[in-house]
Amino acid sequence: MVNFEYQTPTRLMFGRDAIKKLPAVMERFGKRVLLSYGGGSIKRTGLYAKVKELLPDYEITELSGIQPNPKYDPSVLDGVRLCKEKQIEVILAVGGGSVLDCSKAIAAGACYDGEPWDLISGKVKAKAALPIVDIITLAATGSEYDCGGVISRTETNDKIGYMDALLFPAVSILDPVYTFTVSRRQTAAGTADAMNHVMEQYFTGESTLLNDGFMEATLKSLMVNVRKALENPEDYNARAELMLDCTYGCNGILSLGSSYSGWPCHGMEHALSAYYDITHGEGLAIITPRWMKHILSEKTVERFVKYGVNVFGIDPGLGKFEIAERAIQATYDFFASIGIPMHLKELGIDEGRIDEMARHVAENEGLEYAWAPLRQRDIADIFRASL
Amino acid sequence: MVNFEYQTPTRLMFGRDAIKKLPAVMERFGKRVLLSYGGGSIKRTGLYAKVKELLPDYEITELSGIQPNPKYDPSVLDGVRLCKEKQIEVILAVGGGSVLDCSKAIAAGACYDGEPWDLISGKVKAKAALPIVDIITLAATGSEYDCGGVISRTETNDKIGYMDALLFPAVSILDPVYTFTVSRRQTAAGTADAMNHVMEQYFTGESTLLNDGFMEATLKSLMVNVRKALENPEDYNARAELMLDCTYGCNGILSLGSSYSGWPCHGMEHALSAYYDITHGEGLAIITPRWMKHILSEKTVERFVKYGVNVFGIDPGLGKFEIAERAIQATYDFFASIGIPMHLKELGIDEGRIDEMARHVAENEGLEYAWAPLRQRDIADIFRASL
Repeated sequence: MVNFEYQTPTRLMFGRDAIKKLPAVMERFGKRVLLSYGGGSIKRTGLYAKVKELLPDYEITELSGIQPNPKYDPSVLDGVRLCKEKQIEVILAVGGGSVLDCSKAIAAGACYDGEPWDLISGKVKAKAALPIVDIITLAATGSEYDCGGVISRTETNDKIGYMDALLFPAVSILDPVYTFTVSRRQTAAGTADAMNHVMEQYFTGESTLLNDGFMEATLKSLMVNVRKALENPEDYNARAELMLDCTYGCNGILSLGSSYSGWPCHGMEHALSAYYDITHGEGLAIITPRWMKHILSEKTVERFVKYGVNVFGIDPGLGKFEIAERAIQATYDFFASIGIPMHLKELGIDEGRIDEMARHVAENEGLEYAWAPLRQRDIADIFRASL
Repeated sequence: MVNFEYQTPTRLMFGRDAIKKLPAVMERFGKRVLLSYGGGSIKRTGLYAKVKELLPDYEITELSGIQPNPKYDPSVLDGVRLCKEKQIEVILAVGGGSVLDCSKAIAAGACYDGEPWDLISGKVKAKAALPIVDIITLAATGSEYDCGGVISRTETNDKIGYMDALLFPAVSILDPVYTFTVSRRQTAAGTADAMNHVMEQYFTGESTLLNDGFMEATLKSLMVNVRKALENPEDYNARAELMLDCTYGCNGILSLGSSYSGWPCHGMEHALSAYYDITHGEGLAIITPRWMKHILSEKTVERFVKYGVNVFGIDPGLGKFEIAERAIQATYDFFASIGIPMHLKELGIDEGRIDEMARHVAENEGLEYAWAPLRQRDIADIFRASL
């Protein structure tokens, strides 16, 4: 087992009507709030009105219009400016992972005198950050329980993940009911995102029975419950379990003591959504089985065997490569079965910029250090196989 | 899924030589330290000397001799007195769960003007507590990652569990190498303790695929790795995985969203070790299969089927009661196979005080509200079946 440090100080408040505790939660942070949200679905669902009703005596400044693959300009920059102007004391992020990721960048940027990109790019280490409370409306990214985020900078086609222990949300409020209205497409994409978070950690050199068991359980729970949620979008227990599954995706608890895996599919998908602004979870679902196929080898096959037998129930009596290939096909088939478009072309991506994207990934994502190292040519091959 | 709140702010520092970070960890708490430990094994192993060497400029007051089933008088009372006299700023607990449980009671008592028992008994809610850093030398209780403890008061035969969010350790240092010298008997008892922590949460009315999967993985990891550790006490990976398994036992993360289970075996075992001062994990291992047999019914059988199939690999094609009975026998056989004495008589407990203990449990442990409710007569029957 590999040495590790682990701490996740975030308080989870989970369940139906958990929002009732919002006033008690907010009390300790001060009255000047930045309310950050996305395209307005929280107005349609009544959540926006509910938040306002619960915090009548707060001075609320709003930052709306945060997009999927949240943008440095304008969202992060606007948020930082508002925080400074209004002397914001706490950020209340209401939405999915993009809203929260953006809010994390704002929380750090608000306490920094220079250009916020310095912090996101890792050039400067943040010394402080505003506290964050979030109300999550989409089961997907796990941002509610980690200290990281991903920000896109359009002019340079950069999509950068950053992490800082200062950026754990203080409190995450998770009410599965808010996910009842999530579309079929976003429900499937969110599940694919969460499944890939697990797989990125599962496919590694050194793991433990415990970690493997946790990850296999999370994958199986995601697969069973997304089917139920697609069949009946108001199945509370299915939505709740999806939400809890997603929570563990990115804070490391599933792979404590495991060796470095490198998160290759995320590295590659970041380029796809930086260049084409596609839905992150769909990009991941498309890449994942092609990546698996590409890296399958004598060195990696045993992990695929374990995955195939324990997650998909493939007969352990078969030959190891047969099990691995069936497992990869089962992965593809599962994503297809929940309605994910399984070719990049369906998302409007063609051959045109593949080599450019592959070079960008090779130069920026460090995938030559992944468990199964990827160089520019590998990355381009995987992109092409995904078309 | 049941609503829940969850937060575990403790930082885990895990792995070989993790202790090297002790000076950096201690820095923020102040120089006046209460060093709490047990019977002196940390002197034999060199850990005591190492701690002293790493903290040369600290003002260290010692509280030694903390016993298994830690005692209110003298340990808690002495610790509280020392903290007040020496104006202690942080407690450094070095040992197993008993040392840490005792240190938690001291941490709260040191910041309270009245009788510390008020806090342990729940009569008064603590308003503050000293910070705690621990170095764990036994894989068992999970106290390093929860905010609870169990304290025994000899004159009243009370053994009381108390919890307070103030009592999460700030930092837990876990180096599996420190457990290499743990005896066969304590290794087995610690594993049985951790397994029972999981089972107490597994056997409940409402759970999730995710929780069940986490718990089944933890049980399987404990069973596989304790065998390896017994065979080769210096098997680092086995000791490490045992240690990590145990960490999750009692902070609730294995059963988020599950319904109230009641922790019945702990309720019963507390009486056994309060009256007879036996090893907690052995008491639990003896009671568990008898409790299972006692509560097996049409209402409970499905959980036993899931347990039997997923943990012990029993053929799911068999009849449900046959699976359940085989699972209970497998539980007994497993504990016996790792050398645990499986009869209370072997620990010096006879018929004599069974009715008195059963009454004590029935009056104090609330087991009539457990998933499978237990009244005094049930408790006495389970004790008798355990003789």
